[in-house]
Amino acid sequence: MMQNHLTVDLGSRSYPIDFGQKLISTLGQRLRSLALRGQTVVITNETIAPLFLAQVETSLRDAGYPILPILLPDGEIYKNNNTLQQIYDRLLEHRMERSTILIALGGGVIGDMTGYAAATFLRGVDFVQIPTTLLAQVDSSVGGKTGINHPLGKNLIGAFYQPRLVVCDLDSLATLPRREFVAGMAEVVKYGLIHDRDFFYYIRDHLEAINRLTPEPLLTVLHTCCAIKGRIVSADERESGQRALLNFGHTFGHAIETLTGYDQYLHGEAVGMGIVMAADLSRRLGWLGQEEWLDITQIIRRVGLPDKIPPLSIDAVLEAFSRDKKVHGGRPRFVLLQGIGRAVVTADVPESLLIEVIRDHASG
Amino acid sequence: MMQNHLTVDLGSRSYPIDFGQKLISTLGQRLRSLALRGQTVVITNETIAPLFLAQVETSLRDAGYPILPILLPDGEIYKNNNTLQQIYDRLLEHRMERSTILIALGGGVIGDMTGYAAATFLRGVDFVQIPTTLLAQVDSSVGGKTGINHPLGKNLIGAFYQPRLVVCDLDSLATLPRREFVAGMAEVVKYGLIHDRDFFYYIRDHLEAINRLTPEPLLTVLHTCCAIKGRIVSADERESGQRALLNFGHTFGHAIETLTGYDQYLHGEAVGMGIVMAADLSRRLGWLGQEEWLDITQIIRRVGLPDKIPPLSIDAVLEAFSRDKKVHGGRPRFVLLQGIGRAVVTADVPESLLIEVIRDHASG
Repeated sequence: MMQNHLTVDLGSRSYPIDFGQKLISTLGQRLRSLALRGQTVVITNETIAPLFLAQVETSLRDAGYPILPILLPDGEIYKNNNTLQQIYDRLLEHRMERSTILIALGGGVIGDMTGYAAATFLRGVDFVQIPTTLLAQVDSSVGGKTGINHPLGKNLIGAFYQPRLVVCDLDSLATLPRREFVAGMAEVVKYGLIHDRDFFYYIRDHLEAINRLTPEPLLTVLHTCCAIKGRIVSADERESGQRALLNFGHTFGHAIETLTGYDQYLHGEAVGMGIVMAADLSRRLGWLGQEEWLDITQIIRRVGLPDKIPPLSIDAVLEAFSRDKKVHGGRPRFVLLQGIGRAVVTADVPESLLIEVIRDHASG
Repeated sequence: MMQNHLTVDLGSRSYPIDFGQKLISTLGQRLRSLALRGQTVVITNETIAPLFLAQVETSLRDAGYPILPILLPDGEIYKNNNTLQQIYDRLLEHRMERSTILIALGGGVIGDMTGYAAATFLRGVDFVQIPTTLLAQVDSSVGGKTGINHPLGKNLIGAFYQPRLVVCDLDSLATLPRREFVAGMAEVVKYGLIHDRDFFYYIRDHLEAINRLTPEPLLTVLHTCCAIKGRIVSADERESGQRALLNFGHTFGHAIETLTGYDQYLHGEAVGMGIVMAADLSRRLGWLGQEEWLDITQIIRRVGLPDKIPPLSIDAVLEAFSRDKKVHGGRPRFVLLQGIGRAVVTADVPESLLIEVIRDHASG
């Protein structure tokens, strides 16, 4: 049984991330070891509940925690104010108090919503993440970004709020649909691209073993991604500086999600397309060499991410950029590459080049 | 032109409170002096707008700030999710960015909602408080509690989020309806009761001058209240310890507000009733002497607060206590007095005594 740990260093709000197998069955003891006390509320969805909820409940009950499960419908389209209000209603109907521990059991949607509910219920209660998708394990469960979507855009309402514990159980990836695993790999590739050239080529060289969920390279992947993210978040909790690098591929990706109504592509798939577009923009600016560009497009294809981007109206994409949270002084900012492993933020992108990239990749 | 300042010490989130006359007309310069940049959004209500909005807008415009005003209906019943969504909608329709500065111009309802919108819009934007009521100046604008009501109780949804600046302009009190000024005095009296015996007797001895809005004692009152609150908040930002003392009178007060549907009494009036009930509970426990008890009831009466508490069902009050955010392990906690100027938190109150106090004060 392989296990290891990492600490995200945020002073009094530091928290551990546990990696390993069979971790869900020891959750209750783990909460006790962190001196978390109170009633637990497990927030999950209808897809995840049949797979893991019984295990989580048994573990919590054995450790003496009272449990309230809250089941939500599955899907990004439910990550909205309406679902949030249902969570509040359930918590209040069951008289949950400030000592309540909200446990997110699921992917990024469950994690973001549960975290936001924890940030805002009674002005903040404890919160634990059990990410069950690759995407959530390497990305959304670490770093304290919580929130919901608004009809005008993704994650526009939210809060920075740190969990007390993140539990990444490798076993949960065995039940993950292939398409979702592949989508998560887009974020994995991203970490290599923005921060760690060696890791990028490690992924390339171990891709088959990773895809077969071999514990050893998978644990390395999870640990490396979370360590990169943890370091960036420690240095810049509220995204005023280098944290923005984590958004590589996301400005294009969010635009694709917004314009396709959030239901056509998984977040990671949209990010995969966004990576290709952002890398191409970097190439056209002369920042990324032809060989590295080919390495990137090749890995995206080998991972199994969609290599075809849907047809999009150029005006609609530019409009979506202007609504992006990262807009500053009216100009969208882009994270671009100056080589594999080295990302920079810039608002200085000629619109003509932007239009070229959109047209060449998303023209139907 | 009298002026003075105070700093609420919260490390990197410290902020100044300005007190004085004619401060609204220098708001724009003040924001510049704090290096706050961005588009300003002034959130206010239909009652306050005709009184001060033009002044605020002129001051901001003269200092070069773009301005979006958002007018909300006036009243605690609008401090809800529905109004909050309207704020988000307006902000997004007008493409507000992360550099947006939300300015709350109004009383506690405007301040709490604007602060909560600032805490959650794009995961947090800058926020400035211009409290225009006595209650907001001495209480709700300082300390970072933000939030909205839920059908099941007051302030159940919210966040701790600190403003960048609080501006207490004495001149705004001249237009404040008498009833609201009196309601605010309940919180003023509270500060003396929980923390500063000399201040309690200063209020008693200068009550006529304070009631006439004489600048000198009024400035002393505002400054002393905010200094007490600032010190308590600095020591305990997230209400894990002594900050709870600020809730003196509020457990009873919130129950009264909840059971009368938030629209019969002003918050301060309910707190005034709560102060009398909490003081009486302290007296019945033998913690507060007869003479001090009389000093308290006398000042509440002289301030002009309602001395009659509405008839309330004992069961309904106990039920409301059990939903209070301060509930811990199923037992409501009360802030009580061990003499004027000395408050303590306790969950150790015999229910029989609680019932006596409710029956004697609220029996129709």
